[in-house]
Amino acid sequence: MGIEKISSPHSPHVARVRALLGSRGKKERAGSKEFVLEGRSALIAALNPQTSLAPKLEKIYLTETGADLLADIPLTKSGIKIYTVSDAVMKQMADTETPQGILGICSFRENTLHRLTHQDGNSPMKLAFFWEMQDPGNCGTVIRAADAAGFDGIMFSTNSVDIYSPKAVRATAGSLWNIPVIQDVSLEEILDKAESFSLNAFDSHAKHSFDQVVVPDDKGIVLIFGNEARGLPSNIPSEMRVQIPMRGHTESMNVASAAAIAMYHFGRIA
Amino acid sequence: MGIEKISSPHSPHVARVRALLGSRGKKERAGSKEFVLEGRSALIAALNPQTSLAPKLEKIYLTETGADLLADIPLTKSGIKIYTVSDAVMKQMADTETPQGILGICSFRENTLHRLTHQDGNSPMKLAFFWEMQDPGNCGTVIRAADAAGFDGIMFSTNSVDIYSPKAVRATAGSLWNIPVIQDVSLEEILDKAESFSLNAFDSHAKHSFDQVVVPDDKGIVLIFGNEARGLPSNIPSEMRVQIPMRGHTESMNVASAAAIAMYHFGRIA
Repeated sequence: MGIEKISSPHSPHVARVRALLGSRGKKERAGSKEFVLEGRSALIAALNPQTSLAPKLEKIYLTETGADLLADIPLTKSGIKIYTVSDAVMKQMADTETPQGILGICSFRENTLHRLTHQDGNSPMKLAFFWEMQDPGNCGTVIRAADAAGFDGIMFSTNSVDIYSPKAVRATAGSLWNIPVIQDVSLEEILDKAESFSLNAFDSHAKHSFDQVVVPDDKGIVLIFGNEARGLPSNIPSEMRVQIPMRGHTESMNVASAAAIAMYHFGRIA
Repeated sequence: MGIEKISSPHSPHVARVRALLGSRGKKERAGSKEFVLEGRSALIAALNPQTSLAPKLEKIYLTETGADLLADIPLTKSGIKIYTVSDAVMKQMADTETPQGILGICSFRENTLHRLTHQDGNSPMKLAFFWEMQDPGNCGTVIRAADAAGFDGIMFSTNSVDIYSPKAVRATAGSLWNIPVIQDVSLEEILDKAESFSLNAFDSHAKHSFDQVVVPDDKGIVLIFGNEARGLPSNIPSEMRVQIPMRGHTESMNVASAAAIAMYHFGRIA
């Protein structure tokens, strides 16, 4: 098994990684269906995906230090190309300021709600839907929290942040390979599911508390969260809206905090 | 009442605001005990502080648009100087890319744990302590979540991020004026409180779940959270450690997500 070495910053590999990470990265990622991951924990998660809908690891770039950090991990899985790179090349490639020396390129396919709802036989599913989420840190954080809560999938509406942006991928801390993530889901698709799912939209002005929601045994759950600044769209009916009771002087919580509390609650009950 | 107008980008006011926001801002803020807030909701919170330990609003800078956004708010409180600025000047001053046209300078004093524990007579207090938190977004988010949970105060250790950095202040969404915040608290000060407080340190490898903790009626609570990458320091005894049970494939949660879940739980019980 020959491991190719890259020591020139003019290598096409460097240009490729930079294109996927840079300011025009969103377009590049959407066009090629590829994105970049960085760091040990993300790479280990990517080597051992927990869902068939997870992105697929294609290439690994390691510095000497990076290879040492992974010495205990078998990397030679079929189909994954491994390259060793100089520290200078890694510095050119990485999005982080002090790279660990571990970087990968993954390919993804566009998952659909249809495929998700059919992957796990019988038990009703627990899902979360984020409408027009804008902040990549929030996006990665809620993917990680949905994973921790044991949710079955997480969805983002059209006009949401790109979940494959470097900051979002970093904030998932590997959970992108643990839980199916679906982009470009329309609110209408979600509202159409009211027969088979208990739909609960989080609105700080709603009448009822989220912990009074009773979910019938045969129904799944979709938790719906709004945009960071504008909240929920107006066409969500008031009877679907629930609030998280607050005690202090504030009117609202960060959407990722609210989602963590709500997903944790519904992950344990029902 | 004369409102001074600023239309020159060379005004010393511009230089002052930029010094507080820029790359050397941390040093400037620590030296002068001043920081900058931006936006309508933060300014309204600052005009109506809910705690005597909150920062004090000193100066307000408004564009015409900014003044319109605040037309319903009485601004002429004694001691607060108001300046109108041109859009070009605001653009120079603001940290955000599309400023609302509302900016303020606040002064703060260094709050101490001693003052906090004596401000509210008898009922045991609920506090959160963050050890070496590094991310300004996390920092602001947990201040906001502590406020929402009805906590009595929030503390950050030495070597934590500056809570008065523009990104942290923005992420608090005004909660900086709703709940006392104390910086530079040492872990030893917290561990010394074990007689009067139930100390609970969040560690994903701990044996017991946080929701099994029983807090005696006469004791307060301190929830302790570790650094984003390294977790808790090793000198926290194992009997203080509790975990948030997780269901998915991940080993941990973002610290702000964990803190939201835990503070919300302890805010409701005990």
